[in-house]
Amino acid sequence: MSTPLFSGQHSRLDNGVDDTSWSSNPSLTNKHLAMIGAKVSPIESLDYELIENELFRQDWRSRKRVEILQYVVVKWTFVFLVGLFTGIVAFGINLAVENIAGLKFVYTVNFMTSERFVLAFLVYAGANTILVMLAAMLCVYVGPSAAGSGIPEVKAYLNGVDTPNVFSLNTLFVKVIGSIGSVAGGLIVGKEGPLVHVGACIASLLGQGGSVRYGMTWKWLRYLKNDRDRRDLVTCGAAAGVAAAFRAPVGGVLFALEEVTSWWRGPLLWRAFFTTAVVAVVIRTGIVWCKHGNCGLSGEGGLIIFDISGNPDDYGLQELLPVIILGVVGGLLGSLFNQINGKIIMWSNGWLKKKGKGAKIVQAVVVTLITSVCSFGLPWLAKCQPCPKTLGIPGEATCPTYGRTGNFKSFHCPADTYNDLAGLFFNTNDDTIRNLFSKGTNGEFAFSSLIIYLVTSYSLALLTYGIAVPSGLFVPAILCGATYGRIMGMAMKQMYGTAGPMDEGIYALLGAASFLGGSMRMTVSLCIILLELTNNLSLLPLIMLVLLVSKTVGDGFNDALYHLHVQIKDIPFLEAHPLPFMRHLTARDAITGPLVWFSVIERVGTILEVLHTTKHNAFPVVDDNFDDGKNQRPVFCGLVLRSHLLVLLKKKQFLERREQGGLQHDGTFSPAEFAKPGSGKGAKIHDIHLDIAEEEMFLDLHPVTNTSPYTVVETMSLAKAYTLFRQLGLRHLCVMPKSSEGQPILGLLTRHDFMPNYLLNLHPSLRQSNHRKIHAFPSFCSPTQP
Amino acid sequence: MSTPLFSGQHSRLDNGVDDTSWSSNPSLTNKHLAMIGAKVSPIESLDYELIENELFRQDWRSRKRVEILQYVVVKWTFVFLVGLFTGIVAFGINLAVENIAGLKFVYTVNFMTSERFVLAFLVYAGANTILVMLAAMLCVYVGPSAAGSGIPEVKAYLNGVDTPNVFSLNTLFVKVIGSIGSVAGGLIVGKEGPLVHVGACIASLLGQGGSVRYGMTWKWLRYLKNDRDRRDLVTCGAAAGVAAAFRAPVGGVLFALEEVTSWWRGPLLWRAFFTTAVVAVVIRTGIVWCKHGNCGLSGEGGLIIFDISGNPDDYGLQELLPVIILGVVGGLLGSLFNQINGKIIMWSNGWLKKKGKGAKIVQAVVVTLITSVCSFGLPWLAKCQPCPKTLGIPGEATCPTYGRTGNFKSFHCPADTYNDLAGLFFNTNDDTIRNLFSKGTNGEFAFSSLIIYLVTSYSLALLTYGIAVPSGLFVPAILCGATYGRIMGMAMKQMYGTAGPMDEGIYALLGAASFLGGSMRMTVSLCIILLELTNNLSLLPLIMLVLLVSKTVGDGFNDALYHLHVQIKDIPFLEAHPLPFMRHLTARDAITGPLVWFSVIERVGTILEVLHTTKHNAFPVVDDNFDDGKNQRPVFCGLVLRSHLLVLLKKKQFLERREQGGLQHDGTFSPAEFAKPGSGKGAKIHDIHLDIAEEEMFLDLHPVTNTSPYTVVETMSLAKAYTLFRQLGLRHLCVMPKSSEGQPILGLLTRHDFMPNYLLNLHPSLRQSNHRKIHAFPSFCSPTQP
Repeated sequence: MSTPLFSGQHSRLDNGVDDTSWSSNPSLTNKHLAMIGAKVSPIESLDYELIENELFRQDWRSRKRVEILQYVVVKWTFVFLVGLFTGIVAFGINLAVENIAGLKFVYTVNFMTSERFVLAFLVYAGANTILVMLAAMLCVYVGPSAAGSGIPEVKAYLNGVDTPNVFSLNTLFVKVIGSIGSVAGGLIVGKEGPLVHVGACIASLLGQGGSVRYGMTWKWLRYLKNDRDRRDLVTCGAAAGVAAAFRAPVGGVLFALEEVTSWWRGPLLWRAFFTTAVVAVVIRTGIVWCKHGNCGLSGEGGLIIFDISGNPDDYGLQELLPVIILGVVGGLLGSLFNQINGKIIMWSNGWLKKKGKGAKIVQAVVVTLITSVCSFGLPWLAKCQPCPKTLGIPGEATCPTYGRTGNFKSFHCPADTYNDLAGLFFNTNDDTIRNLFSKGTNGEFAFSSLIIYLVTSYSLALLTYGIAVPSGLFVPAILCGATYGRIMGMAMKQMYGTAGPMDEGIYALLGAASFLGGSMRMTVSLCIILLELTNNLSLLPLIMLVLLVSKTVGDGFNDALYHLHVQIKDIPFLEAHPLPFMRHLTARDAITGPLVWFSVIERVGTILEVLHTTKHNAFPVVDDNFDDGKNQRPVFCGLVLRSHLLVLLKKKQFLERREQGGLQHDGTFSPAEFAKPGSGKGAKIHDIHLDIAEEEMFLDLHPVTNTSPYTVVETMSLAKAYTLFRQLGLRHLCVMPKSSEGQPILGLLTRHDFMPNYLLNLHPSLRQSNHRKIHAFPSFCSPTQP
Repeated sequence: MSTPLFSGQHSRLDNGVDDTSWSSNPSLTNKHLAMIGAKVSPIESLDYELIENELFRQDWRSRKRVEILQYVVVKWTFVFLVGLFTGIVAFGINLAVENIAGLKFVYTVNFMTSERFVLAFLVYAGANTILVMLAAMLCVYVGPSAAGSGIPEVKAYLNGVDTPNVFSLNTLFVKVIGSIGSVAGGLIVGKEGPLVHVGACIASLLGQGGSVRYGMTWKWLRYLKNDRDRRDLVTCGAAAGVAAAFRAPVGGVLFALEEVTSWWRGPLLWRAFFTTAVVAVVIRTGIVWCKHGNCGLSGEGGLIIFDISGNPDDYGLQELLPVIILGVVGGLLGSLFNQINGKIIMWSNGWLKKKGKGAKIVQAVVVTLITSVCSFGLPWLAKCQPCPKTLGIPGEATCPTYGRTGNFKSFHCPADTYNDLAGLFFNTNDDTIRNLFSKGTNGEFAFSSLIIYLVTSYSLALLTYGIAVPSGLFVPAILCGATYGRIMGMAMKQMYGTAGPMDEGIYALLGAASFLGGSMRMTVSLCIILLELTNNLSLLPLIMLVLLVSKTVGDGFNDALYHLHVQIKDIPFLEAHPLPFMRHLTARDAITGPLVWFSVIERVGTILEVLHTTKHNAFPVVDDNFDDGKNQRPVFCGLVLRSHLLVLLKKKQFLERREQGGLQHDGTFSPAEFAKPGSGKGAKIHDIHLDIAEEEMFLDLHPVTNTSPYTVVETMSLAKAYTLFRQLGLRHLCVMPKSSEGQPILGLLTRHDFMPNYLLNLHPSLRQSNHRKIHAFPSFCSPTQP
């Protein structure tokens, strides 16, 4: 029994995440790959489980009270810093966007007032193209992970999926500069989604716990060097991002809770909330600072803020019907958006794969040109309208306006008239939203103008989300939703006369809610964000109603947008609940291929060979000579991690003979050496070189073996095994035999073994019962799965 | 191998929760008992796990799409109804309290204006005594579970602890009437805690899914007949209660999330939020209805509402120090409150146990008399102050007032003067809070008056919480906190002069926050509730700061109040994380005593005897003749529940011989028969009578055996087994042997096997390492553990 059983045999195995083909996509069979941003990247899993080996227990016993206090202080300091930096960066992005876009509009308008329209267009389109091209080039060549909104990637990370560069410094840089470029470049995109990614990046970079390379490790930080604490920090970062984007501290926390995270712990609520409060204070300070004229063209700091408090009771039962209609329309348009956007992205991904990097930049430029033509050209279709006699809003009581802001754009119109369509198209997105939401401006926009804007912005949003620039979806959704909301408000006014219903601005708000609900399917956090934006609690029941209706209608057709994108990107995401067909399988049914294991005292050469030839991240450890009184049989001892083996091999302190004991107990290994470094920074097997004598020596695996891995019996229903795996955030789940006569352990299940596509490929007969979600309506559009 | 191994042997066993002595309290050794309300009651556990037996799988396979839709519709209807009923009941309580207390004050003031002070006192004290006595008698004789705030009981239920009467119709009735009595009776108690319990009661009663006895079962409801869906419903009910108490829909949801629940699922967020929105609409409708004069003496519906929006920017850096001081004071006073209150309750529990039920009523009456004497007598100590020339609040611009409300109580003072202490004492608690929080009333209260009120209300609150009436703690905490907050505000004004700092009303608000934070240690939900109460988002950073400081200071001394009460009540509560000492134990170390198990085909008489002689709720099922190819050995098949066995025995369809098959497969058992009824309503073993011939027959346990129970290997660290048990909400956890030569299963772990006291009694050597919480300060007060 001196050589390990099965070791050396390796085929399609199941102890690591890197080797199992779970995807039905034929191009991704060899490695686990997913689309991260605009780049296909390899994927690992994160270790959330406590590795209870002997080293851990020794370290844990020796922890002093002061060290625990240090840990708490460090954690709180970090969440404070996350809030601070996210707030500052978000404010900086706003400032840059407002100033750059402002400058662009000032020059364009100058040419327009002197009636040099062609030159005006060239300046306008040229500026947009340069800005977007910059963003696209950065995305393609410097940080491909930064493309898109980043929310699917953050969601994936918090679900336990590790990708090397998703939170790197490069990505952060590109995300910040790129989203300035794409937003200032006039695309129908927002900076809200990217800000979530920015917050998560900042959190993750802080959570690396210093840098060993630059000698910046700090003893205090070593307790944070694990995936669990990093996950908490990234959650806080995501919350901070939303809070900064909308100035909504409570909404930010709930967004993280509802949409982004997969696991939530009680104390995290408080820490996330602290982070968002810091963000709120930073942004508030920034706005006060801007009020003293330090911010150039930026007025309110560029945040969507519209205070519609006051007259809260001016809605009654007659508003019920239009609100429900808005909900239905939002659900239909939102789910249609998801559907078409998914198809476009899949189609363009395929096309871009053939054409290479340059094509991505061309795609971005073409979309920018189309957008510029629309936003400059379409206002010419609108009739010039006479300025209203009494202006509703005291602050903006000029008509027409020639400058950067204001509801009543002059555009090409003669004096005392304004172009309502230019107020929508020829503006930054934030200003357009403010115009649509503005109260006391009933009848400002013509029916036809709103319809033109709705169709155009909907189409442009579909085209834009998916090109290789940082792009958020909140703003496009709000733009579309607010437009048809306002249309509904105008229709209501025509029915009830001027004295009747709510303000058109409130209809616009409800419309925005319906589109967001119909597309993103978030509920509570959207509700709170909209309440915080409007600062008016009395709208709560209406917003809830509209969200409830639109989400229900949308769920009848397809999945939520981010969920769809997670699927399109091929990310091995673990849903909260097992799929129904998993109840027909047992844990054993998910195991494929033979297993590689180590003896508790193993030959160094064998370990080296296995590490070289497999990509598994954990290996069962088996005691070959366990004596249970009657006879000696192999018994399962626990799991050992690849990363821990690499540390042991690097130290080269091996045993001469196959006997327990020695080196690891003499304190030569500090627990800090086994701490998990940031993603992509661990030791690699290729860095380890041993001579032949060393390969013939032995390694005692006792001290690094996690003797308490979670196990299930082979007959356990796979659905319940899934629940265990998902709820506890495991990376490896051991499947034990029912009767112990054969192998001591049957296999390891990892994330990929629970992927529906993988399981359905193994057991094709189950395909029928795979009704993954109840779509109440006939599925004219089935879930977009590549 | 025809008789089951070990069956018949039963001593101190570990397969059920009812038989293990986990408590170190010598009086509670035979049964699991805990203090529920004012009564010691037996305790069970709830079944959250899906019982995946054959019957379940058959039922589950046959579920049609329309049935799933029915399930969804029923769930949403129920949360709607929970919101509706909770809102109506809460509004009714407010109305009743306002009218009864109003009438009391009207009569008393009438006698006082005619200078018949003794008669006035007799009327006042008499009315209070009658009201509180009514409440106490109801509590003692009708619904003892209704005493106290009920939050610890709701917390316990949502942690998986089942007590028969905690959500019964009796309890609901007593809670509603009793809290009207105790609040209208002038005690320093609130109706907020009781409303949480009321919401949970309503939810639980609805969640029973009709009544079999009254023929009110409805086929649609059968899907809700499980503890999992009931848990969700009760969570929504608790959220609805808070929302109704404070008119804070968002705060209600977060309160449920942060303080009350132990498990949280994504979809629940949305459903809970829907419930609280319904509550908000109901309350709003009620208030509008009251404005038309339908509500007698009730003005604003009796809710604490104070709108302090406006001038949000009037605080700066000079407010930082007093706010931190407030936080520290709140932490100190709050943790001291917890400590003394715990001691008083433990002492009085011991005393009351000797004296019996009458003593509880005497206690309540004595406390009422003390409160009446204080609130009527102490205002005489105050100097009559001249009415201010300019009144800050336009609405209440009368001084002095003689009626029920108003800041400036005349009491015994001559014309044009007012008694400031009477404005605090001689008022309903809600009006006192409104007076303390009121803005623009700087200098209204004298320094000495506030100090007298602080000392008195603090002492009375300590005495009152724990007597046998429904009593909430929010109001006492807000009263004390607001008082010292206002004192701090006055001190600040003296330092900075009149022009300087924030309004005294805002200081009062921050003081209230600090006391709540220092005593209850909630953070986010308190923050949101206070924000929703004041409708002023700009106070967020200050409230957060004060909560952060007070919670940190409080945590330095002892546990949160509700947590302390859970301990005092001896409730076997599962904390979110295992205690450190559990890492020194393995799963095997928690097992005590031999195990009772059944064969897959078992003699009826054996089952009957075991069910009679043990109180276990689950039994392992073992296949004695499992053939693994080499030899026949007993193998563990799964778990069978007592309740399922009772259903089988009741049907009396037994097998003649020991052979598989037959009866259960012919459809005579509908899955509905195995649905879990509400607590205390299941079949009892004593109702089953079999003759001798039947006892000699056999029962095939295959169809009811849950073949996928969660298991751990005996060497698994107990801390990780705890994590599994707690995260998945298990009731039974199977401990499997490492080597299968001996028994096929070693034991079952239940909730009680994870209780620290039980484990430390088993392994006394670990007592040293049981540092359950890091209290940074020297523990002048250790956690109060009986």
